[in-house]
Amino acid sequence: MSVFTPVPESVLADWLKDYAIGRLVELKGISAGVQNSNFFVTTTLGRYVLTLFEGIPRAELPYYLHLMAHLARHGLPVPGPIANRHNEYLGTLQERPAALVVRLSGSSEMNPGLPHCEKVGAMLAGLHLAGQSYGRRQENPRGAAWRAATAQVVRPFLPADEQALLDAELAFQATIDVAALPAGAIHADLFRDNVLWDTDADGDVRIGGVIDFYFAGYDALLFDVAVTVNDWCSTPDGGLDGARAAALLDAYHAERPFTDAEVAAWPAMLRAAALRFWMSRATDFHLPRAGEMVLVKDPNEYRDILRLRIAGVPPLPR
Amino acid sequence: MSVFTPVPESVLADWLKDYAIGRLVELKGISAGVQNSNFFVTTTLGRYVLTLFEGIPRAELPYYLHLMAHLARHGLPVPGPIANRHNEYLGTLQERPAALVVRLSGSSEMNPGLPHCEKVGAMLAGLHLAGQSYGRRQENPRGAAWRAATAQVVRPFLPADEQALLDAELAFQATIDVAALPAGAIHADLFRDNVLWDTDADGDVRIGGVIDFYFAGYDALLFDVAVTVNDWCSTPDGGLDGARAAALLDAYHAERPFTDAEVAAWPAMLRAAALRFWMSRATDFHLPRAGEMVLVKDPNEYRDILRLRIAGVPPLPR
Repeated sequence: MSVFTPVPESVLADWLKDYAIGRLVELKGISAGVQNSNFFVTTTLGRYVLTLFEGIPRAELPYYLHLMAHLARHGLPVPGPIANRHNEYLGTLQERPAALVVRLSGSSEMNPGLPHCEKVGAMLAGLHLAGQSYGRRQENPRGAAWRAATAQVVRPFLPADEQALLDAELAFQATIDVAALPAGAIHADLFRDNVLWDTDADGDVRIGGVIDFYFAGYDALLFDVAVTVNDWCSTPDGGLDGARAAALLDAYHAERPFTDAEVAAWPAMLRAAALRFWMSRATDFHLPRAGEMVLVKDPNEYRDILRLRIAGVPPLPR
Repeated sequence: MSVFTPVPESVLADWLKDYAIGRLVELKGISAGVQNSNFFVTTTLGRYVLTLFEGIPRAELPYYLHLMAHLARHGLPVPGPIANRHNEYLGTLQERPAALVVRLSGSSEMNPGLPHCEKVGAMLAGLHLAGQSYGRRQENPRGAAWRAATAQVVRPFLPADEQALLDAELAFQATIDVAALPAGAIHADLFRDNVLWDTDADGDVRIGGVIDFYFAGYDALLFDVAVTVNDWCSTPDGGLDGARAAALLDAYHAERPFTDAEVAAWPAMLRAAALRFWMSRATDFHLPRAGEMVLVKDPNEYRDILRLRIAGVPPLPR
């Protein structure tokens, strides 16, 4: 959903007096936001992103903001939230929960090559390793329970063959012992548009930022790897690109070696990750909510990815 | 002092396993360090600066590292320290206390113009405002007590006219009620070489980083302003450049208005700040320590600045 709350410059300039980042120079809405209202904010001291949270309950926001702060202070390219003069990350602006984060540089790469996949794999392992010492815990909001519940809501809108696919997949997933897998804080939405690529002084491409942690939560680390591989390493028809998948997984494995339980669960996790996005997109498609602007993405893309992952996938490195 | 501790790549690569920032790509010593051993460290995930602390007692280091973290999370362009997998900023490498911080971009500007002075003034006010909510406290290591004690050590090496200048200044400074001034965490060494200037996407110059917080401490905020003005706004002969001083002070004043007590104490603080660097440079000059490499700076520069500040200075904005 995208409910856009306007913020007049004078209101923001006044709100910024509660921070130590100087005076407002420029305020610019970001049209790309599909869940919250986002703005680029430039002050005399730096460049920031302002987010007004439109749908997430206020009580759930500290988990996300402190996770971003935790990862940033562990050296990962994650936008650290900015504390105000009362040492708080979360404020209120235009009657919405609101937060400023550091604006990182770079832009998305929608046609990633092997070097991109390798860097994303290493970075994801870094996120998972650093996340192990994060003290807060909030369940993955799109975890197994959400997927099972959402499937029942979406099911009546699907044709018979898709209903059969869904029923079979839910039955299969219910047999998987996710608790046996290493778990921790996961990003859970590390799609290509959530990674910003920058060029360093030597002209080498590097990750300038990983953004949009508002689907993060506690879950199997391998689920996060699966979400990432399904997006970064799929061919246009949904098949797995073996070379890109190997680049991403080998780089991840070098930082955090996969366990035996993870090697066994890999095909199931790729399927669970596909199911998650099939279900969320099918919900947006079949059950649009009045009064909300939704960037409707094709649910069939992830239905096809699910079918192709069921047909078979290469094993994890070990 | 500059005692350089070498760090072999293999030793660092092993040490980095305790962090979540990927694999070592490049290690490069920084020759500019005059107090500690500093290195540029590039990993698969980012660019960092590694510092091995050569002289500062280990117990004093958390104050500096947590201050940098505090200011960075308040949105200031300060290199945030990197926590290891045990959530600690301070480690041990080659038998020295050691820490990694974010490597910020930019380079020093030794011939600052009015826009530079304006930006430094605004940024210094931001540091002071954000520092008000910093919970730790450690006295300025080059505060009034250090200056008085060091003066007695240096005095015998000075010619008669400088001894008279020193005695008169110490007597004058003893009459100043520093406790009446707003206080907090100050940088205390914000010279031109400790500010990195960067160019943003629009070609505008901006502060990319403020570095070297290892003289920071709790003291009068105005002392920090005076240290900064004496370096950024002096002519080659030590006189105050009125236009640059006005640019810096007006920008500071706009963020944190000077109090009446500060307006009254301004000439005395400029003199105290000049005395501090005269004394430290005279110590390095007259009492070189065996076995240490010292970048000896001319003590007479700050003797002359002191004399010229005694002769009179323009008032603070109000």
